[in-house]
Amino acid sequence: MNAEIIAIGSEMLTPFRTDTNSLFLTARLNELGVNVVRKTVVGDDQPRLTEAIAQAWERSGIVMTIGGLGPTADDLTRECAAAVLGRALKSDAAIAEWLVARFRSRGMVMPQINLRQAMVIEGATILPNTRGTAPGQWMEHDGKHLILLPGPPREMETMFSDAVLPALRERLPRAYLRRRQLRMTGLTESAAEEIIAPIFTRYTNPVTTILATLGEIQVHLMSTAPTEAEATACVDDLAAQLEKALGAVVFSNDGKGLETVAGSLLAARGESLAVAESCTGGLLGERVTAVAGSSKYFLGGVVSYADAVKESLLGVPAVMIEEHGAVSEPVARQMANEVRARLGATYGLSITGIAGPDGALPGKPVGLVYIALATPDGTPDGTKVAMKKFTGEREPVRWQAAQAALDLLRRHLAGLD
Amino acid sequence: MNAEIIAIGSEMLTPFRTDTNSLFLTARLNELGVNVVRKTVVGDDQPRLTEAIAQAWERSGIVMTIGGLGPTADDLTRECAAAVLGRALKSDAAIAEWLVARFRSRGMVMPQINLRQAMVIEGATILPNTRGTAPGQWMEHDGKHLILLPGPPREMETMFSDAVLPALRERLPRAYLRRRQLRMTGLTESAAEEIIAPIFTRYTNPVTTILATLGEIQVHLMSTAPTEAEATACVDDLAAQLEKALGAVVFSNDGKGLETVAGSLLAARGESLAVAESCTGGLLGERVTAVAGSSKYFLGGVVSYADAVKESLLGVPAVMIEEHGAVSEPVARQMANEVRARLGATYGLSITGIAGPDGALPGKPVGLVYIALATPDGTPDGTKVAMKKFTGEREPVRWQAAQAALDLLRRHLAGLD
Repeated sequence: MNAEIIAIGSEMLTPFRTDTNSLFLTARLNELGVNVVRKTVVGDDQPRLTEAIAQAWERSGIVMTIGGLGPTADDLTRECAAAVLGRALKSDAAIAEWLVARFRSRGMVMPQINLRQAMVIEGATILPNTRGTAPGQWMEHDGKHLILLPGPPREMETMFSDAVLPALRERLPRAYLRRRQLRMTGLTESAAEEIIAPIFTRYTNPVTTILATLGEIQVHLMSTAPTEAEATACVDDLAAQLEKALGAVVFSNDGKGLETVAGSLLAARGESLAVAESCTGGLLGERVTAVAGSSKYFLGGVVSYADAVKESLLGVPAVMIEEHGAVSEPVARQMANEVRARLGATYGLSITGIAGPDGALPGKPVGLVYIALATPDGTPDGTKVAMKKFTGEREPVRWQAAQAALDLLRRHLAGLD
Repeated sequence: MNAEIIAIGSEMLTPFRTDTNSLFLTARLNELGVNVVRKTVVGDDQPRLTEAIAQAWERSGIVMTIGGLGPTADDLTRECAAAVLGRALKSDAAIAEWLVARFRSRGMVMPQINLRQAMVIEGATILPNTRGTAPGQWMEHDGKHLILLPGPPREMETMFSDAVLPALRERLPRAYLRRRQLRMTGLTESAAEEIIAPIFTRYTNPVTTILATLGEIQVHLMSTAPTEAEATACVDDLAAQLEKALGAVVFSNDGKGLETVAGSLLAARGESLAVAESCTGGLLGERVTAVAGSSKYFLGGVVSYADAVKESLLGVPAVMIEEHGAVSEPVARQMANEVRARLGATYGLSITGIAGPDGALPGKPVGLVYIALATPDGTPDGTKVAMKKFTGEREPVRWQAAQAALDLLRRHLAGLD
């Protein structure tokens, strides 16, 4: 069965807001074996919204609207949906009472206008809103479904998961869709395609898609089958083949981010990390600590943006900066070694580079980054240094630098180097 | 005149990708006085795409499609648009030649399939692609416009700005739309509304919209007028009234972010900044250094995630942590004072808090954050400390903490405290 999603709200027709609610709904619908074939964004405008619902209702078995269920005159979804179905709108006494009680329990008198939220389309199933005041509504007709959901993401997601998903699963033909995702870094999209195309093109199920994001390539697999077990086996089998062919570049086969994967390896080994950052200005530490529980393995670090701070907090000799430059292999090495020693960490991870737009020097272009990992191995080889040349502007260079540093750590911890 | 945007590509009907190209187009169209009234996302599917273009073409004076102009069999926009207009598709010799030459100049032989990109709809104006291989096409009919643009953002934006915008401006009735944006932090959406509603509700032009984002409230103003000068004067006048009513909470009236505003104040005063971060793990430094040229005023900092690092790198006495806790006013004060002194900066800015989900203590809930700003004033009052209680999960708490720290700095530099 096919579905369409209509996101309602004039703010999504400005340059400032985009619809993201549909990503959640698409993921859940896909799990039921339902494809989303069209998404529409329409403003708080009665004729346009009515037309959008009518056309979608004609085309697709499931139509979900998001938004426009609030109490104000702008909120028109109930009226438009009723018009499309040719059904009446009636006030529901139980909802009205619940609304009044909800306001009273907060010591407030309900404005009369909120009674609009008690208007229900004839024959609709009411979908309770446990997170807000706008109930949803579900109309079934000739095996087709028109489902009205509220706009605030928490309200919409809770209502969908609690009241829509289980009931929809019962009504739909048994079809299961399973997704898997391989995430990798350190290669290009075309290199990834060259490695895995000979394998995945032999299958039409799962469907394989390669997506490139900054500093990362993702391979998405999607299988469909009449049972959950078959769908899972189908996607797992191909995922395993592709992962084997890709090898060490794959950092995750379960959706986890690079900082989470590296952090789990550190936690499992009972080891700790300290960072020294120059051009990333704190991004590496920020990513490491974005993972809840990172205090188990992350001690802290130094942001040595100015050369004087490289000297004072990381003991980088002024003569070394003079001779080799702040963006150089010896400085990266010294930063990693020193932050490791001074913070008493198992590993020291450093980044020094030229993020741009200014700062390029003869032989040292914007995008040049040195990354170093100091390890407990006391030999000169115990500190690994990598030189990278990234393309793009300031933010992309910084992101890729942090990504490469985390990957250097991951590969070392996983014994892949 | 009204416009519709159709974003084409099956990847935008997955849970992983959303259309963002339309935000750029909406901003530019608005500047021409054109409203976007509907946005559609449709996959690489010939009947569905044809239907989407046909319906939009019937409704709206300007229809822009994004994507589906590549060389592969998936790329169907040319065929579908030709079918809707009832016009023929013909190979264009000049484009074909240009394509062959482009490949040759890179030492490559052009795959035959790329000739699909030389197929042009009868009567179309060709839109050169200076960033890629897919030319755009523009069909005019009865004063209406169907414009086909490529999907990659760089290609689409360059083509639109260079080849579409100037020509569209000539063809449209003179109507000018101007936007202004006030950005503020440290108050709620309803508090902002209470202050400014008595003013902006007196005007229907400009239109005023209040949007809340994490740690920030934005007031968007949009005016329309027959001349550029009138539109600008209209929006500037209301913006000035609202800014005056809101006062010190407004950090920007020209779209600039808080880190840029604070950085410009530092640069103008020839002063410098050092940071000491605990729960934000590097986010504050990352935000400060996201601004190009921040090396003029940012020296660096310390990420003192573990208590031992607070002691070793920031001289926070163990007994102070024992007595008051790591998340406390004295520790925040000591972090700011010490990072200022050790790095020789004009200002030291510190954050210590509980980002969660774990780490709450009796009397110290998740979301409790202390922020301190050490200044050149040598008195005990020379270091300002603020206590905040933020709601939300780990990432929102961290973001709001960095936002509040930057705002403490901004207010001090602007003499607003």
